[in-house]
Parts: sequence; structure tokens; C-alpha cells
Amino acid sequence: MRVILVAGTTQTAKIPGISAAGADPSLVGHTPSADAEIVEFGQTVRSPVTPVSPTGCPTPAAITRAVRELTGFDALVVDGGLSEPTGAPTIDVGAMPGRDIREEQPVPTAPGAFEAARQLATTLPEDELVIGETVPGGTTTAMAVLRALGEDFGVSSSLPENPTDLKEEVVADAFDASGLSPGDAAHTPKRAARYLGDPVLPVVAGLTVGALESGIEVTLGGGTQLLTAAALARHAGAVGDLSLATTSYLADDVPHLEDAAEAFDLDLVVTDPEFESHPLDRYAAGEAKEGACMGGALMLADRMGVLDDVEAATLDVLSRLDPEAVDADAVEDDA
Amino acid sequence: MRVILVAGTTQTAKIPGISAAGADPSLVGHTPSADAEIVEFGQTVRSPVTPVSPTGCPTPAAITRAVRELTGFDALVVDGGLSEPTGAPTIDVGAMPGRDIREEQPVPTAPGAFEAARQLATTLPEDELVIGETVPGGTTTAMAVLRALGEDFGVSSSLPENPTDLKEEVVADAFDASGLSPGDAAHTPKRAARYLGDPVLPVVAGLTVGALESGIEVTLGGGTQLLTAAALARHAGAVGDLSLATTSYLADDVPHLEDAAEAFDLDLVVTDPEFESHPLDRYAAGEAKEGACMGGALMLADRMGVLDDVEAATLDVLSRLDPEAVDADAVEDDA
Repeated sequence: MRVILVAGTTQTAKIPGISAAGADPSLVGHTPSADAEIVEFGQTVRSPVTPVSPTGCPTPAAITRAVRELTGFDALVVDGGLSEPTGAPTIDVGAMPGRDIREEQPVPTAPGAFEAARQLATTLPEDELVIGETVPGGTTTAMAVLRALGEDFGVSSSLPENPTDLKEEVVADAFDASGLSPGDAAHTPKRAARYLGDPVLPVVAGLTVGALESGIEVTLGGGTQLLTAAALARHAGAVGDLSLATTSYLADDVPHLEDAAEAFDLDLVVTDPEFESHPLDRYAAGEAKEGACMGGALMLADRMGVLDDVEAATLDVLSRLDPEAVDADAVEDDA
Repeated sequence: MRVILVAGTTQTAKIPGISAAGADPSLVGHTPSADAEIVEFGQTVRSPVTPVSPTGCPTPAAITRAVRELTGFDALVVDGGLSEPTGAPTIDVGAMPGRDIREEQPVPTAPGAFEAARQLATTLPEDELVIGETVPGGTTTAMAVLRALGEDFGVSSSLPENPTDLKEEVVADAFDASGLSPGDAAHTPKRAARYLGDPVLPVVAGLTVGALESGIEVTLGGGTQLLTAAALARHAGAVGDLSLATTSYLADDVPHLEDAAEAFDLDLVVTDPEFESHPLDRYAAGEAKEGACMGGALMLADRMGVLDDVEAATLDVLSRLDPEAVDADAVEDDA
């Protein structure tokens, strides 16, 4: 079993109000590079910032790292179009940073990266993969891709109040720029990702297709972006068992999640980490919700019987990432 | 503690007779990519070949992998100028494949990669690093770099008979092409690597300098190439405890090794894996000798009390890499 984190960027995240994945918009490009480092090393290495939301909600990568420290799972970071240096070792599948989806062709690398990721997954020695993503702005591109595939499900947000109107506007502009209409990319997933997506989605979809072809069990760990990757894989013709493992925070935010999972023939696993302490109470308040394979990691924690230890382990990770972010007493009490 | 494998290429390896790191010269470019995969996954992933010498001696990466399976050490691959795709995740420090050292400037990326590697090492969370290399043709470039630094020590070879005359000729041509004379790059290690080296040496040296600056304990796991990296680090002004961990096979081949270690203020650790079974008996016959951090891995195996298990574990790795290369009975007997 191995956890794969696909980390990349889209300029779509720079649109004001789209993403909470960074203390301010100038820093969102660093978030996936930093998330990869946190999962790999438990701390930032080359990244100049530790990702937090504008209100101080810590990155879900800290939870994934905490579960990794509790369970020892192997991790692998695939470069899904990083724009800033990362100290985490990455696998190259030819993905480049994505442009704003309001440009004509935001992800020219989508078809090549999809195929390279598919090939890669067919050769991995694992019998099970848990795949997650970190790409700020990714729910907006996911919304556009779902529409391009002709699927009508909505998407979540890392913000407490989903900026749905803004997303609708951006997605409408994206369709205008691409020359495509909703549904035009049904059964042509590479086209959907190339003209309306971000560089991470085709990589996750390619990995999923390749793994399913090779009889590797796949769990997609995340929310509506991973749901979209599953849609891309199904539109590519991939058959076989596929699960979506997400957090209770995400599931609470997406009432249609069960219907959507059923539509794409996904086993849905929802895990509640029952966070209470500051600053993890931001999750209970509806921030972040998912990301960096958090839902997949929580599923693994539950499977290995350490779910009750995740909050304390996460506070411990956070206390190393930023001692001031965590109340020292909370770490004591929870440990 | 973490093992870092710096994997790269130099066109110097294509000179007939220079390297044994590949069944034939057309395949040597794949060797470091495959070695990285073997250390990471215990099998090849994207690489089309499993590296063996022309006579069938298996890559030292199999031994490093075996020790990893026995001890569970963390590994990290740094891209030191790979020319072929690898399925192993790698860290990018800006190194590009090296040209033939008989060209004027074989490694233009040397200064930048040295600095990026130095920076990277200062930020890693480890308290100890064991650093190795895989770069076919690397002993020839090491010879040239040592001369450029004004150091007179000779180098080893992956071949049973060191092609010393050929190397001398190539190195003489390299100096002609560079416009430098031996000793001209003393105390300017980036210059030595840029005009006479391969892309791996400045990365290993940069990592070493950065780690020593940060108080991280460093062991260089390998032979005369790692000795050369140590020389580069010392010429860069790096002070602090530095060890060279190598195999008995390499030490037997390099009579001046103790003197050289003393000259660069290195603690020398020599470990004998006492290989007897086919095909590992090729090592006792003087092939390969070192590579892919084998000496460093053996040191760790010895420290953790599993040195006696390395031969059986390596045969097990080899039986998975290429079932025909290993006598099934030997695996049974040794296990």
C-alpha cells in the first residue's frame, strides 16, 4: 500500500476569493510544494511558508503527515505541475503549472501527463494505492471539468462560505475561452482537463486508470476534486473497484455526495476525526474540509485502529511546524 | 538518519571501455534511473533494464535495497543529471545530464546545482545523512576532478581490470578541452566540477557542505568518487566530521585509500559483506566493488546488527529483479 500525493498549481487560484489555501493570494503557489514537504518530512524544507488559511486553519497536509507518523505508510509525491521548488522528492510525468482556466488552453500538458501517469501506475509494485491531491483553486477547475464531461454535480470549497457565484462566473468565462460547451468533452477526459482543468486532475485520473488496468486497488482520498478525477477515469472507460475516502467535514458540505459516488460507481468512505482543539476546531467550523489526501489518511488511520490518536498526533506535527499556532497545553492534554 | 542517493549521467560513460555499469554501452544511461528505482521500490518501474555488468555482475543498488529492506532506513533520491525517466521520486537541484569531459564545459549546471544542494541540506530535518552516488563513468570524471583540485590520488573502477591508460588519455583530453591545467581549480570546487566533472559530484559535494554547516553528521557511502566529493567539500572550506564508508572490495583495489582519507580528514569505515554465492561472487572477483551507496548501506547493516543477513536479502532482491540471475537453491540455502 502506498499513498500518492499529486501536487500542482493552477493560476486559477490567483483569482481573488477562489481559494483558502494560503494566508494570502501571493502565497498559494507555495502551498502544494509545502504540503508535499510536510507529508514527506513533517516540516517545510525549501518552502518559505507553512500553509494556513487566511483565518489560521492549518493545512490538511498536517493531518496526513500525522497519520503517516502513526501508521508508517509509504508515500510518493507526483509532480502535477508545481510552480515553486519543493524539498520533497517527486516523480515527473511531464505536468507543468496550469494557467488560469479563463485562458483558451490552460493545461496543454494534460494528455501527455495523463498517459505518463497511467504508464507509471501500471508499473508500480503496490497492490493498493491511496491517491490524493494538493492544488489550490482545484475545486473551481473541478467544477469546470465536471461540466465539460456533462456531469452536473457541484463542488465543495476550502472556504467556510463556498463562493459559488464567483466560481460560476469563472467557469462560464472558461467555457467561453475554450470554445467548448458543457458536455462537449464527455468520454474525452484528456480534452476536458486540457481545456478546462488544472494539471493535477489528469495525473490523478491517469494514475487511477493505470492502476485499475493493472488490478491495483485504488482509493481516491479527498473531496469533490477526487470525485472529478474519478469521473475522468470513468469517462476514460476505466472499470473496476474504486473508492472515495473523504472527511465528515467534506461530506457535510456536499449533500449530493452519495448520489455522485453512486453515479461514478464509487464506494464512499466517510471518516470523522472529531477534532475539538484549537486550531483544528477550524475544521469543525467548516474550513479546509479536505486536501492533501486527508480523507484517505483518516481511512487508513481508522483501518489501523489509530483514529483516536490522530488529533494529538496532528497537534504534535503542528507544534513542530509552527510552535505559536498550537496551544502547548492542548498538546500536553491530548498526548 | 536518511540515505541520499544522487543519481546522474555523463556522456563520458559512452566512451568504449570506461564503465561496467550496463550490459552494453547503449544501456548505461538507464543505469542510474534503474538504480534509483531499485533502492526505492525493490524493482525496476519505468526503466527498461535491470543493470548488470557485461559479465552479469548485479548492480550494487540491489545490495543497498537489501539493506533497506532489513533496516527500514529512509531514502531520498536527488536528481544529479538523469538522462532517462525514472519511476523513483527525485529532488530537483537543477542538475542536467553531463557532457563528455572531452568537451570544453561538460557540466554548466555544476555551480547552480552545488548551491541548490547545499541549501537543500541545510533545511533537511535529519541529524545524520549517508550520501551515495550512481553515475556510470564516474570514476573517470572523479580522476579529472581530483587532478583539477591538485590532488594526486588515483581512482578505482567498476571493471576487474582498471582501464587506467584509457582514463589517463581521456583526462588529458579533458584538460586540453577545458583550458585548465591540473591544480588550476584548487579551492574552486565548482570550477573543477564544471570544467572536468560529472553532474553528480557537485551535488554530493554541495549536500555535504550544507549538511556540515548545519551540524548534520555526514557519511559518504562509496569509493573514489565519494572521496572526490569529499575533496570538493574540503576545497569548498567545509570543516567538521566526515566519514567515508566503503566496501572491502573497493578498499582492496585502492592501496592509497587510507592515505587519501587522512589527507581529506575522513574517518574511513570499510565493511566486508563476505559474499560467496553466485552471482554475488562477482564482487569477490573484483567487479563493481561499490556504487549506489553500497558501502554506506553495509556500514548501516553492520551498525544495526544485520550484516550477516545481507547476502540472503540481496539474493532475495535479485530473485525478484531477475529470477534467472539467481540460483533458486542458493536463495533457499541462504535464507
